[in-house]
Amino acid sequence: MEPDRKTSTDVHDSLERVIDLLHRHDAPVASSMDASGAPNPTPEDTARRQKILEELRVLLDPLHPADVAYILEALPLVQRLVVWDLVKADRDGEILLEVSDAVRETLIEHMDDQELVAATGQLEADEIADLAPDLPSEVIENVFKLLPPEEREQLREAMSYPEGTVGALMDFDMVQIREDVTLEVVLRYLRRLDELPDHTDQLFVVDRAEQLKGLVPVNRLLVTDPDVVVGDVMTRDYVKFNADDDAADAAAAFERYDLVSAPVVDDAGALVGRMTVNAVVDFMREKTDSEMLTAGGLREDEDLFASVWKSVQNRWAWLAINLITAFAASRVIGIFEGSIGKLVALAALMPIIAGIGGNSGNQTITMIVRALALGQITRENARKLFTKELCVSALNGLIWGGVVGIFAFLIYHNWQLGLVMMLAMVLNLLLAASMGVLIPMAMDKLGRDPAVGASVMITAITDSGGFFIFLGLATLFLV
Amino acid sequence: MEPDRKTSTDVHDSLERVIDLLHRHDAPVASSMDASGAPNPTPEDTARRQKILEELRVLLDPLHPADVAYILEALPLVQRLVVWDLVKADRDGEILLEVSDAVRETLIEHMDDQELVAATGQLEADEIADLAPDLPSEVIENVFKLLPPEEREQLREAMSYPEGTVGALMDFDMVQIREDVTLEVVLRYLRRLDELPDHTDQLFVVDRAEQLKGLVPVNRLLVTDPDVVVGDVMTRDYVKFNADDDAADAAAAFERYDLVSAPVVDDAGALVGRMTVNAVVDFMREKTDSEMLTAGGLREDEDLFASVWKSVQNRWAWLAINLITAFAASRVIGIFEGSIGKLVALAALMPIIAGIGGNSGNQTITMIVRALALGQITRENARKLFTKELCVSALNGLIWGGVVGIFAFLIYHNWQLGLVMMLAMVLNLLLAASMGVLIPMAMDKLGRDPAVGASVMITAITDSGGFFIFLGLATLFLV
Repeated sequence: MEPDRKTSTDVHDSLERVIDLLHRHDAPVASSMDASGAPNPTPEDTARRQKILEELRVLLDPLHPADVAYILEALPLVQRLVVWDLVKADRDGEILLEVSDAVRETLIEHMDDQELVAATGQLEADEIADLAPDLPSEVIENVFKLLPPEEREQLREAMSYPEGTVGALMDFDMVQIREDVTLEVVLRYLRRLDELPDHTDQLFVVDRAEQLKGLVPVNRLLVTDPDVVVGDVMTRDYVKFNADDDAADAAAAFERYDLVSAPVVDDAGALVGRMTVNAVVDFMREKTDSEMLTAGGLREDEDLFASVWKSVQNRWAWLAINLITAFAASRVIGIFEGSIGKLVALAALMPIIAGIGGNSGNQTITMIVRALALGQITRENARKLFTKELCVSALNGLIWGGVVGIFAFLIYHNWQLGLVMMLAMVLNLLLAASMGVLIPMAMDKLGRDPAVGASVMITAITDSGGFFIFLGLATLFLV
Repeated sequence: MEPDRKTSTDVHDSLERVIDLLHRHDAPVASSMDASGAPNPTPEDTARRQKILEELRVLLDPLHPADVAYILEALPLVQRLVVWDLVKADRDGEILLEVSDAVRETLIEHMDDQELVAATGQLEADEIADLAPDLPSEVIENVFKLLPPEEREQLREAMSYPEGTVGALMDFDMVQIREDVTLEVVLRYLRRLDELPDHTDQLFVVDRAEQLKGLVPVNRLLVTDPDVVVGDVMTRDYVKFNADDDAADAAAAFERYDLVSAPVVDDAGALVGRMTVNAVVDFMREKTDSEMLTAGGLREDEDLFASVWKSVQNRWAWLAINLITAFAASRVIGIFEGSIGKLVALAALMPIIAGIGGNSGNQTITMIVRALALGQITRENARKLFTKELCVSALNGLIWGGVVGIFAFLIYHNWQLGLVMMLAMVLNLLLAASMGVLIPMAMDKLGRDPAVGASVMITAITDSGGFFIFLGLATLFLV
């Protein structure tokens, strides 16, 4: 059992103090040169630095692993490694679990295989499985050999489920009981355990073949007469997951039914693990995080202090895609250079049509992606939504098209130009609405995540489409 | 105590079945015209419809309130109200709690005051407080009068905390015990309760003045000798929140320390409520949702089947803001109409510079907003990040500027034009990087949420700035 760790909601304060100490540790020191010209710190300086490191250790030691992880994330690489060296070796594993993938990579790079085996060895099977993708394969093999047979089997099991499934999120800390014993027996059994696993809000009732028969909420144990038999108090109607289920669906069920833990079974109905709300919370956070990064055009979680070169790599794919769509839009304009040469105002006005089209299309896509994620789109709903979005766009097109038409007329004193602006706006918004509904629905049908890429596609279409519609109409009617 | 509700991970199936039944219910019926010309359904049709509604009721009745809420969200207004009428009156309150704000509005609109008072009356004080903003004030007053004094006090308390604080999320379902009794006494006390409140993973130890002294995990009750005194097993080092604390900080603490529940105290240290992980999960989901909607340009949660006019209203603010920035960019181009008239290629190339600048700026902003949200930005980090982002942009500018320069040269066979493109790209990306760091940091300093609006601002700057830099350089060197 783990001792109570000091926890704190003021982890910012700890961070500030760590930074302050590191600053004093790294401050330039009075030093003499030795014969070879290298700086040679005086004994007083060495002692002073040692004392600061000791202070740091005292500060870090009582912190929760999640708080140490937080501090590591917020430090530039060199200072991060100073702190990492100070953290007691017996907590390496827990801290590695808590840091982000990008920062974990920087820490693992600075550990040798032996340290990694030691760090991983402290963890439970499901936790080792979480770290496994980032560890060298020799380390995994060594850890594997050192595990007791039961945990080895669990590790094999945990590693066999792909990311995004319930199996990849489950743990093995289940308390299992039999149907035909009294609560008194159960209570005696529990008392023999030193402590129940975290998040044990229910015990799992299984038969000899490991088939799940029911659940007994821990709280029901407390309020029920101890002479009652398990079978008489257990819940038979409960939420359970299959290890192959989609983790996002399971998370939604946790949210809907306010679960703390839930059993995980295999295809044969045998209990294989459990899922807890803390795994769900972590999963939700990671999912949100990665969606936010993708929406912002970052490929993956970027270490705040990644090298310039790493950052460039993380960002190039997005810029390249956008460059291609920008080139396409540029060539569309190129077709109409003759018209622009005759009426230069077109060049100044065309980005308005393209830009508002992109905004409006993204509004539609946001609605549809959300509804898809919630599973609210049925065949009938789809038709209704399509009509609705077209109506919204037509109305918006008339309103905002009118505004930009007046803008164009006021500046260029050309009412035909104003009318063309308005017409182009209506058409581009209708294009945006139909693509805003169709693109995410098509991606969903094809099994692709509509949250990724739909926004780039709609912007590409409303840019090139907007330029084409506006300049095309202008060529027909104005020049 | 609540009976076990049927829960299901296949709520999509229920939705499909509901839609199917509603479809059959609404199908055109054979009807004769009565004297006034209104359709007059035959008695068989009326009976058939009645039977379908009965089937619907049987389907809906065992569903968890959250699942009913889910189905209501996915139905167009008319069908939504048919289902709403069928749901048993004693569950109205729970379902209202589960639906989104936009859908709740449509449901409340179709209930009279008496129904609303009855629906709200079933709920606990903290839940009533959640609904309160959407209810007519007469209803709130009536509910208030009907509550027992203790709950009335709780409702007053819950309604006194602004949204986004711990106080607004907490509930009052706490089990409180005294320090000087044995676990045996505690167990006897618990057995007298019919059932413990949901998410009771720990009991709160308070003195006569309601001062919080410690916590006893429920699981420790099970594994400890009943003769031990509470004071000897209770945890004295634990996470607690103040009712005025920021809810987001509290949610982060739940995530870091894997909490299921935590006590909430007032400034004097007296226990006033507790926060549970299910409130945290709901809070996280709502926050993510609203961030996603804001990022997509929607003002607030939009009912999927809102009327066209409501949708137009929900979307106009964003379009108006973007129209203003587009007008500004258009006027920047207007300054250089003379140059474009002389070299029309500029019109075709300028959107490339502006567009890539916007993408790059949004990448920087995404990084910084995330780091700010995690509290990882210190004064020293800020300087380092600023330098890093400038370096990344300079490198990206050279790479992608080179690519667009070559593109321009290949199409227009003008190497000076290519050089101007490249230079403009470098400068616009440097502008994007510096603004991408400065805008969110400044907003954060001013106490504004940097996640909202920063993206619009950076795009406006890189658009107008990109046009100005490119056309300005072209005017200087090319025409």
